[in-house]
Amino acid sequence: MSDTPRDTYARNDLTTPTRDKERAAWDRDAVHAVLDAGYLCHLGFVRDGAPVVLPTLYARVGERLYIHGSTGSRPLRGARDEQGLAVCVTVTHLDGLVLAKSAFNHSVNYRSVVAHGTAHQVTDPEELRIALDAIVEQVAPGRAADCRPGNAKELAATAVIRLELDQVSAKSRTGDVVDDEADLDLPYWAGVVPVAPVYGTPQASPHSDLPLPGYLAGPTC
Amino acid sequence: MSDTPRDTYARNDLTTPTRDKERAAWDRDAVHAVLDAGYLCHLGFVRDGAPVVLPTLYARVGERLYIHGSTGSRPLRGARDEQGLAVCVTVTHLDGLVLAKSAFNHSVNYRSVVAHGTAHQVTDPEELRIALDAIVEQVAPGRAADCRPGNAKELAATAVIRLELDQVSAKSRTGDVVDDEADLDLPYWAGVVPVAPVYGTPQASPHSDLPLPGYLAGPTC
Repeated sequence: MSDTPRDTYARNDLTTPTRDKERAAWDRDAVHAVLDAGYLCHLGFVRDGAPVVLPTLYARVGERLYIHGSTGSRPLRGARDEQGLAVCVTVTHLDGLVLAKSAFNHSVNYRSVVAHGTAHQVTDPEELRIALDAIVEQVAPGRAADCRPGNAKELAATAVIRLELDQVSAKSRTGDVVDDEADLDLPYWAGVVPVAPVYGTPQASPHSDLPLPGYLAGPTC
Repeated sequence: MSDTPRDTYARNDLTTPTRDKERAAWDRDAVHAVLDAGYLCHLGFVRDGAPVVLPTLYARVGERLYIHGSTGSRPLRGARDEQGLAVCVTVTHLDGLVLAKSAFNHSVNYRSVVAHGTAHQVTDPEELRIALDAIVEQVAPGRAADCRPGNAKELAATAVIRLELDQVSAKSRTGDVVDDEADLDLPYWAGVVPVAPVYGTPQASPHSDLPLPGYLAGPTC
């Protein structure tokens, strides 16, 4: 029997930030919301005792993360073995620059998730297809059904690793500047500059004279 | 005498991606350009044998990266010791979604830098001040001179680690979809959806009735 309620992840040393603990959250909905708002993650693993951090794409399917890897990558080949590969997957959304009256109180608004665990390479062809579709969908919802699916050769050339969401937490900062009382009257502008990814006009390739699909017509984020 | 020309970083196993090697670059200007275009990095290190990846802020000063840490962080305290802390610092800019006719040829346009090495905590007060100013400047150029500088107590409460740029490379994908010849006539839209961070209207805090500073008036990126 676990002490962890079903609607939250475990709160422990691994999943608790060492700084600004009050910004952390363990409830599944909060974690899922951060993950579902993105598709770019930073994947960390250990190679020859040293850390490696690479940007890549991911998708969340229930309580699993599927992370796009490379069949040529030596360390990721470790994920093929039964013992798997220790990873840390981090997703970060930057929401604003927080400019305080003092240099010290400068900050950023953000939402992030850090997931720790042991990843395994997806070897089952059906699961691999589901994972790849999910990654395409995470980037552009509606797209997986509107392109040619991977064939056997392509699937064999694609590596996806699976991480169960278990040792995971979210962290965020929102809202206004927090200045020291003594600094409030200093003659410096203070406030928040919002920032968000914005999608531009889709640029059709020369081999595409079709109308823009509906799922690309609206804002993608 | 080094085999590495002064205008490029070393090209070796550590700095060569295992995938899409043709997208990699080692020249200093290319690496600096990617670093200078951002301020958010993902810092990787090893804790109890497992990888940890955390988002944080950085600045480039010449051939050094200064990375904002936490004085409370147990692993980062390792950077205080003479042997330092093995880190990987990764900076990624997402530039576009690349939607191909086949699921397999989907991709993203991006620019990234991966820097490996041993980081050391900045302990010299003068260097710490330079580093913190640089981090503020990297986020909002012009800001460091327009806020209250850190005092001794604040500097003591701030941890910054230094990484010499040495084992580093850039990687990028640009341009249009690359579809298989056999897929070109498939009835799917294909093309690139550009994406970039966009800054919104700065929101002054209630304690700031000053006009918006010039360095925040234009586009920040």
